[in-house]
Amino acid sequence: MEDFSQSVSFDRELYSQDIRGSIAHARMLGRRGIIPEEDANLIIEGLEGILAEIESGSDPWNSALEDVHMNIESILTGKIGEAGGRLHTARSRNDQVALDLKLFIRDTSEGILGRIRNLLQVLMDRAQEQKDTILPGYTHMQRAQPVLLAHHLMAYFEMLRRDHGRFKVLKEDLNESPLGSGALAGTPHNIDRNMTAAELGFDGITRNSMDSVSDRDFAAQFLFNTALCQIHLSRLAEEIVFWSSAEFSFVTLPDTFSTGSSMMPQKKNPDAAELVRGKTGRTIGNLMSLLVVLKGLPLTYNRDLQEDKEPVFDSTRTLSGSLEVMAGLLDEIIFEKQNMASAANDGLLTATDLADYLVGKGLTFRKAHEVTGKLVTLCLNKGCGLDGLELDVMQRECDAIDEDIYDFLKVVSSIGRRNTPGGTAGKQVQLAMEEGRDWLAKSNSD
Amino acid sequence: MEDFSQSVSFDRELYSQDIRGSIAHARMLGRRGIIPEEDANLIIEGLEGILAEIESGSDPWNSALEDVHMNIESILTGKIGEAGGRLHTARSRNDQVALDLKLFIRDTSEGILGRIRNLLQVLMDRAQEQKDTILPGYTHMQRAQPVLLAHHLMAYFEMLRRDHGRFKVLKEDLNESPLGSGALAGTPHNIDRNMTAAELGFDGITRNSMDSVSDRDFAAQFLFNTALCQIHLSRLAEEIVFWSSAEFSFVTLPDTFSTGSSMMPQKKNPDAAELVRGKTGRTIGNLMSLLVVLKGLPLTYNRDLQEDKEPVFDSTRTLSGSLEVMAGLLDEIIFEKQNMASAANDGLLTATDLADYLVGKGLTFRKAHEVTGKLVTLCLNKGCGLDGLELDVMQRECDAIDEDIYDFLKVVSSIGRRNTPGGTAGKQVQLAMEEGRDWLAKSNSD
Amino acid sequence: MEDFSQSVSFDRELYSQDIRGSIAHARMLGRRGIIPEEDANLIIEGLEGILAEIESGSDPWNSALEDVHMNIESILTGKIGEAGGRLHTARSRNDQVALDLKLFIRDTSEGILGRIRNLLQVLMDRAQEQKDTILPGYTHMQRAQPVLLAHHLMAYFEMLRRDHGRFKVLKEDLNESPLGSGALAGTPHNIDRNMTAAELGFDGITRNSMDSVSDRDFAAQFLFNTALCQIHLSRLAEEIVFWSSAEFSFVTLPDTFSTGSSMMPQKKNPDAAELVRGKTGRTIGNLMSLLVVLKGLPLTYNRDLQEDKEPVFDSTRTLSGSLEVMAGLLDEIIFEKQNMASAANDGLLTATDLADYLVGKGLTFRKAHEVTGKLVTLCLNKGCGLDGLELDVMQRECDAIDEDIYDFLKVVSSIGRRNTPGGTAGKQVQLAMEEGRDWLAKSNSD
Amino acid sequence: MEDFSQSVSFDRELYSQDIRGSIAHARMLGRRGIIPEEDANLIIEGLEGILAEIESGSDPWNSALEDVHMNIESILTGKIGEAGGRLHTARSRNDQVALDLKLFIRDTSEGILGRIRNLLQVLMDRAQEQKDTILPGYTHMQRAQPVLLAHHLMAYFEMLRRDHGRFKVLKEDLNESPLGSGALAGTPHNIDRNMTAAELGFDGITRNSMDSVSDRDFAAQFLFNTALCQIHLSRLAEEIVFWSSAEFSFVTLPDTFSTGSSMMPQKKNPDAAELVRGKTGRTIGNLMSLLVVLKGLPLTYNRDLQEDKEPVFDSTRTLSGSLEVMAGLLDEIIFEKQNMASAANDGLLTATDLADYLVGKGLTFRKAHEVTGKLVTLCLNKGCGLDGLELDVMQRECDAIDEDIYDFLKVVSSIGRRNTPGGTAGKQVQLAMEEGRDWLAKSNSD
Repeated sequence: MEDFSQSVSFDRELYSQDIRGSIAHARMLGRRGIIPEEDANLIIEGLEGILAEIESGSDPWNSALEDVHMNIESILTGKIGEAGGRLHTARSRNDQVALDLKLFIRDTSEGILGRIRNLLQVLMDRAQEQKDTILPGYTHMQRAQPVLLAHHLMAYFEMLRRDHGRFKVLKEDLNESPLGSGALAGTPHNIDRNMTAAELGFDGITRNSMDSVSDRDFAAQFLFNTALCQIHLSRLAEEIVFWSSAEFSFVTLPDTFSTGSSMMPQKKNPDAAELVRGKTGRTIGNLMSLLVVLKGLPLTYNRDLQEDKEPVFDSTRTLSGSLEVMAGLLDEIIFEKQNMASAANDGLLTATDLADYLVGKGLTFRKAHEVTGKLVTLCLNKGCGLDGLELDVMQRECDAIDEDIYDFLKVVSSIGRRNTPGGTAGKQVQLAMEEGRDWLAKSNSD
Repeated sequence: MEDFSQSVSFDRELYSQDIRGSIAHARMLGRRGIIPEEDANLIIEGLEGILAEIESGSDPWNSALEDVHMNIESILTGKIGEAGGRLHTARSRNDQVALDLKLFIRDTSEGILGRIRNLLQVLMDRAQEQKDTILPGYTHMQRAQPVLLAHHLMAYFEMLRRDHGRFKVLKEDLNESPLGSGALAGTPHNIDRNMTAAELGFDGITRNSMDSVSDRDFAAQFLFNTALCQIHLSRLAEEIVFWSSAEFSFVTLPDTFSTGSSMMPQKKNPDAAELVRGKTGRTIGNLMSLLVVLKGLPLTYNRDLQEDKEPVFDSTRTLSGSLEVMAGLLDEIIFEKQNMASAANDGLLTATDLADYLVGKGLTFRKAHEVTGKLVTLCLNKGCGLDGLELDVMQRECDAIDEDIYDFLKVVSSIGRRNTPGGTAGKQVQLAMEEGRDWLAKSNSD
Repeated sequence: MEDFSQSVSFDRELYSQDIRGSIAHARMLGRRGIIPEEDANLIIEGLEGILAEIESGSDPWNSALEDVHMNIESILTGKIGEAGGRLHTARSRNDQVALDLKLFIRDTSEGILGRIRNLLQVLMDRAQEQKDTILPGYTHMQRAQPVLLAHHLMAYFEMLRRDHGRFKVLKEDLNESPLGSGALAGTPHNIDRNMTAAELGFDGITRNSMDSVSDRDFAAQFLFNTALCQIHLSRLAEEIVFWSSAEFSFVTLPDTFSTGSSMMPQKKNPDAAELVRGKTGRTIGNLMSLLVVLKGLPLTYNRDLQEDKEPVFDSTRTLSGSLEVMAGLLDEIIFEKQNMASAANDGLLTATDLADYLVGKGLTFRKAHEVTGKLVTLCLNKGCGLDGLELDVMQRECDAIDEDIYDFLKVVSSIGRRNTPGGTAGKQVQLAMEEGRDWLAKSNSD
Repeated sequence: MEDFSQSVSFDRELYSQDIRGSIAHARMLGRRGIIPEEDANLIIEGLEGILAEIESGSDPWNSALEDVHMNIESILTGKIGEAGGRLHTARSRNDQVALDLKLFIRDTSEGILGRIRNLLQVLMDRAQEQKDTILPGYTHMQRAQPVLLAHHLMAYFEMLRRDHGRFKVLKEDLNESPLGSGALAGTPHNIDRNMTAAELGFDGITRNSMDSVSDRDFAAQFLFNTALCQIHLSRLAEEIVFWSSAEFSFVTLPDTFSTGSSMMPQKKNPDAAELVRGKTGRTIGNLMSLLVVLKGLPLTYNRDLQEDKEPVFDSTRTLSGSLEVMAGLLDEIIFEKQNMASAANDGLLTATDLADYLVGKGLTFRKAHEVTGKLVTLCLNKGCGLDGLELDVMQRECDAIDEDIYDFLKVVSSIGRRNTPGGTAGKQVQLAMEEGRDWLAKSNSD
């Protein structure tokens, strides 16, 4: 049972948050005269010492003491004697653990935000570098219309920017300290909740003690953010996997992010991308774990809530690692422009352009659609692209077609024409990159 | 296959969003001269007519036409002839469906926000009414410390206020129109994306066409918000279920929200609460569905995305219904104050108060803890409450104990002392209710 | 509230199971003399009439009567008068609904088993037909070793055969009738549970009434089986999606299972496969839904259990449709043998064969591995396949290499040599198909 | 990247399965002359040595060597030299890892089966001991009908017996060895797959090499079985939580499976039960993780599959611990018979008996229902139980009521009458326990 119920084997990951919280609490207790000021000072020094020791590598954990909180208090009392017994005055493990997890998620979100920005920078840099590279845009994994690789990469920039926004909002939501909520009903001591909140970097305090000790919304939102960000990475990963297949050959993988075998040096397995894709499973699983824990739990603290931590730790590790790996992979990946270009120049990718050309000549959309279909069928029969049809052949289907059609159907013209905001025209993509670069610079300096 | 792939049987729920989007699009096409202004006007009138007909009960859907978009275009063309064929100029079903779902979620979030505020109002009103009712606060479903029922209800106020915040943020995030992204790459026509965006109530436009047609983050966040809100309701539902058991008898259920049987009129099954609790399953399942759909999907539009709608519709219905039912149930539920009070007065619920008393007399927290334990053990042996111990018996354990202990141990004193912000003292709860009432008034008028 | 709690809008799908159950119950009540035999006969005739009417298209449902059970009883009483009031003797809705859902899952599993066998037959037929077609086998989406297409298809045969086994086991597990468990404790009437069980096709009866009315394991297992089978289909669907890309061009899709556009006739979107892949989300979501419902439910019947039906109905429809669509799609899909063969003949796919050749000549596995690597590097530099290296070039790396290496490295030799059970050699694949065909014939006649 | 992609930090849990598999493989290679017999012997001895060292506590793992397989091969080669390089002949990590995980799940299922039987034994023993204890049976958490505690406990016996069946079926399904499937296509070496299969305790071999290296159905089924079993435990845990509340007081918790505090010795938190309930989240999350990983994965091996192991390890630990804790807890829990009996004797719990009595007198079920309702209403007004109504009062509602009604309404008569198979009558419960005991004895000796 000790083994089943102890949590110190994993919640020790909270040690620094726990100690910071206790230092703030002790200082406030001393200031308010709830405990003697000299005891408060002893406690603070003792805790600072413990923090330093752990950070320099000591491993003081004892699973008989159940959790990280009891462990640290016990070490403290061993160090400074009876005064240690005053630390827990006007506090309960229930508000303490809620505080620790909030602080942890705030800290860890900061780290994730930085890693997202790092990946955004890589996407931006590669997009800028590849600003003239053309590849087919796909719908249903079928070639649909030519696009710029920069535009394609900037689609992921947008996804990850939204992730950044979600973690930012979460961090800002973590601005209320639960400390002082006691076991569930508050505390009779004359504490100063705002003082500890301020020392710990919160803007304010929570408003209801019963809610404070049982609220894990912030952890659920963190797990959701993590899962959704990992899903975005899984989409990019999927693309890298098939781009690196022999059939696509749109990219060559860097050795550091793939495994080959000494036997088959031609084979570069996209392990990094596959792992990122596969690890989506665990981030979704972690989210589900916590939601199931919370379902139907009555107020206030129930021991079920101990199950909140491991999903958070695991998803933190998973997403952090995945962001780093994807940044490294994208930074070094070689885009095979020639192969991308050939795929984009298959001669039928500009069929919608032809239809748009006809609309420009006054046909209704549905009529233009129909004519285009007939001409594409001619191409399929002849085995050529649209630009391989002679003018009179085209005019037989629709006399609005003119000599200018051949320029119109070029892949570069097609791209250039998609020149309204958000479109793939070079000018629009440049504007989008400028906006993105500014946003990134601003975000980095926030 | 037609049956397998059609979506009109469910996506017709989007009819009003689809028509609104098409009207805005047609107006813009006309204004820009992309289609003749008179055709634009014909289209707009035609669409307004269709909208009116559907809203007055017509059921024009034909599953051979696959989806709501094709159905409406086909009805339109039947109505106004060839001009209908111009509506889809410079648009694709890909940006159209992204737009429709965004509009739907914006509309539906508005409705949910109202229902949340309605439930918040009921919680507030009942809390105000029950401001002196005392019941045990529980941890681990064990009686822990006495609290005010108003404080307990206000814990749910806080949870639901967070839900309100999440839906609000989501709605504000839905401020960028994807219309004009085309199939994936933008459009060569000289459209005005900002004009359609403004007409549809967006603040701006999305920045990348490829992302725009494949982004369903907003639907995922909606499903998460829904699941978490339903989980909060499931916690309250669980409490109502056991409060209405014979053993607790803390509440009597209103007939409208319970089922009895003609045979056992004494039995009032808390069906409403059980259903709300049970329906948590589907809201989590719906979230899971969409996350699985999105995992590993390459850019841009893939038909898998058709699976985004039913979870959104189902979770909307589920949460809307649950919020209404819980509001109705809470509004009429009878709180059995007497039973709550007896439970709170079991004589041992103020054990932590005794410890706090001793800390006030200068003992360390750990020492005070120990003395309290001894006195409670005496009570258990004697079969009395702490207030049933005689003074000298107590003083034998700790001579710091004085005559004033008996007042100190009263349930009302216990509650009154928890008088720091967020605590259960009447004064704090009043302040919390005032703050909540102001917030609610402000939110209602936003 | 009526709207929120009614279930007849969906549970009417159980009408035939409900009526069958009631007929068996009434017959037993009459036989045992618990109700007059003539009343039993009236009830049975009445119910048979109702069944016939519903099956010929009547739509008698009234949502004010809450569920399918109350609806049918009410129609019955309207038809036959007071005797109808005797039907529910010695029965409760709790055992009735458990029975109905069990019967439904038994019936529906039968249908799914047939659909799985149908798809297995298609896989088998296409495998037989393509017994000489060669394509690359992939690991990590990288070409690894050549395999027979028949072998590849038979991998899915194995997956789906396991699904068949799982549904078979489930159906066999559904062999105990819960009828007679009453509300939760059994019934005081002298019923004959074995008689109703036998009439309804069960082998026996459940052993504990409290468990019987609250057990939904069979529904959970059904949802798991469904999700796993759908996952298998999603894997095949994923392959069809990328096989149909321009880059792979391994298959051409039949028009009936893809959508093109009149404008781009060259584009055949693999909608059917994408939908099958996407619908995996909902089958996993449905499983999740029920598991969440069941978590933490105390004995015995709780209204939360009403949430068991919709996931079952939805997953039934989803998997049944997907199996049919995949069977149709696979039946008509055109395998582009020439493209597959070219991909398999890229000259480096037999690198592991070279290593095996060297092991055959006495080298250790690790040494053979190393030599192969060197030769492949030579190829990459020269831009040729292994068969493009001259003999003396090879011998410079390893003098064990002989003239016979060129035959050895042919793709057909490579395949032919993988001739132990389960391997891709033609002989083994034939044996596997024979075994599969026998198994299928036997399963069809079971 | 090394850190991101290594798996030895967790997959070393497979060391014994990996070594057993390698020993069988080496023996077969030697026997078949694929490698020299003396090398085979060297390998076998070397591996046995490594196994012994690990089991006596050595910790030889090096994360630079990626996974458990490479680690062991490297240690082996360090030990026995070049012969070690022959071990991997005719094998790939792909079939090796599929084998290892299958063996692990077979082993671990054995352990779980034992723990389930242990818990079944405890349930049986406590049921036998409590064969006369009466408590209310609940539906909707409302007292419904009196039942025997033994009957209630035996409901869980049935649930867990089904879990036992599911793990048993799974273990039997794990009867086909994948070894010899190679990387994906089989192997050209003349291996004997049946020989290794037999040595490793399999009944036969898998039938398709491509399926064999990518099949994880067995792991998914294991995770499902684990989740469903944990859900059953969560239901029992929920009951223990509220049974141990002050309001129910149906049980007293053993100190070893609850936490009190030195301060509040009256408070025994049902931590063990809460943790078991809470840990349901992670077992469901683990199942979801793997299902998400598998969705849409093309053939054959993809690195995503590395994500199959941690969920299996975690769910194994969780369920094993939970089964042990629940067995210990139930073994020592004190049933407060007196409190249970009082709750069962509230005088209205036999209302359905009254209705059944009236049916026995010839009333229709619906009529009997109505009369009962009226009498219960009288009770509620008078504040008495049904047995507190005088005969003439009852007769005024229905003259079929006789003096014998008072005996009929006793709780013990009520229970005694539910005497058809599966009912709560003492005789039926005894029969059920006998059947259960026989089954358990047989299962233990299987």
